[in-house]
Amino acid sequence: MPQGQVSVTPTDGLTTRQRRNRPLLVVHTGVMKGKSTAAFGMALRGWNQGWSIGVFQFVKSAKWKVGEEEAFRALGEVHSRTGQGGPVEWHKMGSGWSWSRKAGTETDHAADAAEGWAEIRRRIGTEAHRVYVLDEFTYPLKWGWIDVDEVVDVLVNRPGQQHVIITGRDAPQALVEAADLVMETTKVKHPMDAGQKGQRGIEW
Amino acid sequence: MPQGQVSVTPTDGLTTRQRRNRPLLVVHTGVMKGKSTAAFGMALRGWNQGWSIGVFQFVKSAKWKVGEEEAFRALGEVHSRTGQGGPVEWHKMGSGWSWSRKAGTETDHAADAAEGWAEIRRRIGTEAHRVYVLDEFTYPLKWGWIDVDEVVDVLVNRPGQQHVIITGRDAPQALVEAADLVMETTKVKHPMDAGQKGQRGIEW
Repeated sequence: MPQGQVSVTPTDGLTTRQRRNRPLLVVHTGVMKGKSTAAFGMALRGWNQGWSIGVFQFVKSAKWKVGEEEAFRALGEVHSRTGQGGPVEWHKMGSGWSWSRKAGTETDHAADAAEGWAEIRRRIGTEAHRVYVLDEFTYPLKWGWIDVDEVVDVLVNRPGQQHVIITGRDAPQALVEAADLVMETTKVKHPMDAGQKGQRGIEW
Repeated sequence: MPQGQVSVTPTDGLTTRQRRNRPLLVVHTGVMKGKSTAAFGMALRGWNQGWSIGVFQFVKSAKWKVGEEEAFRALGEVHSRTGQGGPVEWHKMGSGWSWSRKAGTETDHAADAAEGWAEIRRRIGTEAHRVYVLDEFTYPLKWGWIDVDEVVDVLVNRPGQQHVIITGRDAPQALVEAADLVMETTKVKHPMDAGQKGQRGIEW
């Protein structure tokens, strides 16, 4: 695959090396399901670089589980066992954040979401991971459970070389403006239009 | 994550179970780079189901390597060692297809591409894999190295429960029409627009 052509000469005063290694804020939005899938695909690349991967799924249900979770846990074990790739942490809101003493409240998703963001903010402050996937994170922003301005402030001013990938529909404008890369998935044709139901291995 | 709502009652005469397990032909096209990344993300889900994964990259250079390749090879080894997940094969045109006695010709990409497709057609005929990722496959179609009508015929009439995911820009219309799911990635904002060059762990 050819590398993309640079279309503009930058005037940011950075060296090529600094620019090459600039940490990215990535937003995957739009109506199609490829958003999370593509985010996890990006995380695969980071894993291969030996980077620490932190996945935080802002899903309401503890039962929701995508195949990527097992695959990444397996890759985390490969790292522990052989040193290949990077370490992996995978956290889900719906089952109660694993660092929390309490189980998911199930009744106060807003509080659970705020707790998730507080932990992520703490980790960003200590540069705990090199890649963060904040999956379905646009929803608590949209619903006002987490303050968009604070999120943008923390992300824009994050230290070091931390890449952050955020997925979900209806990304807030302030987040889109702050992002380095925004991908929108567009539905051209989907089997559910023809009555196809979601199926194992494809939709989850 | 909620499962999508079915918007149309199908009139295809299939039972719900038959319909639920229908093999899919998926095309990821458009101008953004998420195409392949999302395809590999889908393959992760298949791996987790214990399905045999076959990746065929129609890239010209032997040197081109994405992080996903190492991650999937690691997952293939997890399967061999523990039985978790499914087996993985990863083949690249640029380095000479691994089943071929000859090295990549480097001078006749059209012949290499045709050889790759002949092998995929053979494997589809014997149901060798459950998931096929034909990465960057639209290019040999576009350039006339492989006959689009033959590809569509083989894919539409493939036996069993084989999912096929094809990536690349400018997918031929006949392929889009035959597909069950078409995802188009749209560039909203990309760091290369601001002079950012591709970087390790992100672009490959």
